[in-house]
Amino acid sequence: MRCMEAIPTDPLARLRAAADARAVAGLRRTLRPRTPDDDGLVDLASNDYLGLARDPRPARAAARAATVWGTGSTGSRLVTGSTQLHAEFEDRLTEFTGAAGALLFSSGYLANLAAVSTLGAGGLVVSDAGNHASIVDACRLARGRVVVTPHADVDAVEKALVDRQEEHAVVVTDALFSVNGDLAPLGELHAAAVRHGALLVVDEAHALGVLGAGGRGAVHELGLTGDPSIVRTVTLSKSLGSQGGAVLGAAEVIQTLVDTGRSFIFDTGLAPACVAAALEALDILQIQPELPGYVRARAREVASMARGLGLETNDPAGAVVSIVLGTPEAALRAAAVCAENGVRAGCFRPPSVPVGRSCLRLTARANLSSDDLSAIRRALTAVAEMKVNA
Amino acid sequence: MRCMEAIPTDPLARLRAAADARAVAGLRRTLRPRTPDDDGLVDLASNDYLGLARDPRPARAAARAATVWGTGSTGSRLVTGSTQLHAEFEDRLTEFTGAAGALLFSSGYLANLAAVSTLGAGGLVVSDAGNHASIVDACRLARGRVVVTPHADVDAVEKALVDRQEEHAVVVTDALFSVNGDLAPLGELHAAAVRHGALLVVDEAHALGVLGAGGRGAVHELGLTGDPSIVRTVTLSKSLGSQGGAVLGAAEVIQTLVDTGRSFIFDTGLAPACVAAALEALDILQIQPELPGYVRARAREVASMARGLGLETNDPAGAVVSIVLGTPEAALRAAAVCAENGVRAGCFRPPSVPVGRSCLRLTARANLSSDDLSAIRRALTAVAEMKVNA
Repeated sequence: MRCMEAIPTDPLARLRAAADARAVAGLRRTLRPRTPDDDGLVDLASNDYLGLARDPRPARAAARAATVWGTGSTGSRLVTGSTQLHAEFEDRLTEFTGAAGALLFSSGYLANLAAVSTLGAGGLVVSDAGNHASIVDACRLARGRVVVTPHADVDAVEKALVDRQEEHAVVVTDALFSVNGDLAPLGELHAAAVRHGALLVVDEAHALGVLGAGGRGAVHELGLTGDPSIVRTVTLSKSLGSQGGAVLGAAEVIQTLVDTGRSFIFDTGLAPACVAAALEALDILQIQPELPGYVRARAREVASMARGLGLETNDPAGAVVSIVLGTPEAALRAAAVCAENGVRAGCFRPPSVPVGRSCLRLTARANLSSDDLSAIRRALTAVAEMKVNA
Repeated sequence: MRCMEAIPTDPLARLRAAADARAVAGLRRTLRPRTPDDDGLVDLASNDYLGLARDPRPARAAARAATVWGTGSTGSRLVTGSTQLHAEFEDRLTEFTGAAGALLFSSGYLANLAAVSTLGAGGLVVSDAGNHASIVDACRLARGRVVVTPHADVDAVEKALVDRQEEHAVVVTDALFSVNGDLAPLGELHAAAVRHGALLVVDEAHALGVLGAGGRGAVHELGLTGDPSIVRTVTLSKSLGSQGGAVLGAAEVIQTLVDTGRSFIFDTGLAPACVAAALEALDILQIQPELPGYVRARAREVASMARGLGLETNDPAGAVVSIVLGTPEAALRAAAVCAENGVRAGCFRPPSVPVGRSCLRLTARANLSSDDLSAIRRALTAVAEMKVNA
């Protein structure tokens, strides 16, 4: 007797069903490609905080690098993917941030994966509930025990460190949280980490170029750059207007990443054009150390505008202004109202934010003009009216 | 009575001890930044298989894109990081590879993380023991059950699929393995996946631009491009001489990644210069469909040279020629001998290869000249003599 063969399931049916469920929950996402002039909108949605992504100077540096070094780095940083340009950037970033050493990655995501998974391997990782997705993934890859602490809760961090059985531990936090725009309690976290022999990994993605003297970041502002127990990660894709990421830390940390960081060893090195653009951006930051102050002032201006119109907003520490609308529908409608009034705003819904806290995310830029600010006022006025009429 | 406070451990002491242990085991790694002329060496170590990373045409396209679109994409693909250039590349890659759809990532590593972790989530993932590190990490992030099968063992894959309790399953494999240069048994893996209602994820990183008609890859060569149960991942950093990665698949797969792929949603979009360089490389591939044949012919030539000199080598399916030396020391010495003779070779030691199988990895390029081939012959002759005299 021949067995009936089981009818194979259509492996895509499951994906279709899940997509349908997301549609019902308002969680389908659509890509909306920009035109070269950003559809004529004032950009308050990007992370180009200093406006350097569209500055002709980094663009010229990128063009030169593509010609001199090639359009790709051609291999792992450990094989052919390290050029003198990569080394120069690492030296300059080290010097700029006051770190002992720096290591370039092709993205901030991969820098976080390597830093946290390598330093936390087999130990305890204590991670803030509001940390970026790349840190959450890095915790999973560390293959140790992970304790997620409530947002900005230093007591919970201390308790996790005290209660641990593991010999080594890593505390990890965003410096400036990307959606709410609030600062981590870095000084207290550092004190707790030092008390309990733990490393503190600080993701300065949204702080580099925005906080600290000349944009040197939150750790620099606290005067902790020389502390060997602090490891920083940064991105080249926000204030530096390019692409890539880096880890800053003691020589022992850098060597650990070079020898064992999987997302360092097994990834192609950053493209020379991206390295050169970010290097030029660092030059600009040093020539124009006032830029980070401009972006913070613009953010406060936008937040104060929103508050004056009766909208619920944060007190921005950096570039991020968050305006809480409540439901996903209200946030989507508010983003559409902004676009109708010439402003591109980010729209954040669960699971990126808690239920009931859907919001607009407006990112200030150092180079917002008075015309831009007028457009922003019009847009926020329309959002406030929309809210009243809802 | 006051408790004595425990003396906090120096968190870097552990890292120093581990680094010392790696030094003893010969597993310390050093970055050696290249000069613009690659130190005058013939490059057989990079993944620039078609020589397009140093071609002036993609460099010009990269320069233009940095000016028109900016040096960075400025945000997540879902916010401001999608430009018409990204959409154009996805359309062109879809068309070139015969896929239903394509989705760009800032690296191949992140493309693999998203594809496997998303499609395998909560199910069974069956992964070849020789798969790339990014696939191994992706398996860990899938939070399902992972079965690692012996290299190229279709029976073991079939058994894992048959024995499973999970409703859905994903089989994942490199198309062309990056160190040994051998091909996966794709046809049989596909048949097994189809029989058991599983998806087959194929990483074509080292196959795109090298295998299949005009470099359309291994899945294309098998005539399976239209099969909705096959998902492909590719990189832009090897044959296309740029940076980035992409996932190719059915509309349901692409939508799943857009909605739920963490390394897609929470990463900055690929820099425009990199997109443009890869787009130009695709153009060149279509104008010069003979390039992939050249690289395969050069690889066979180098392998046959090595074999003729009594060296143990593979029968290269693509660009990768592997020459087994045995001990890590012998492999390191052989790489140094190659460099002394004007050739840059990759050197692979455990854990990248099994113990006793340390090797040189030579990657052929479509544009190797007869002078280059003479240098390669000299270098391999010196390696063979070194082996005889060892």
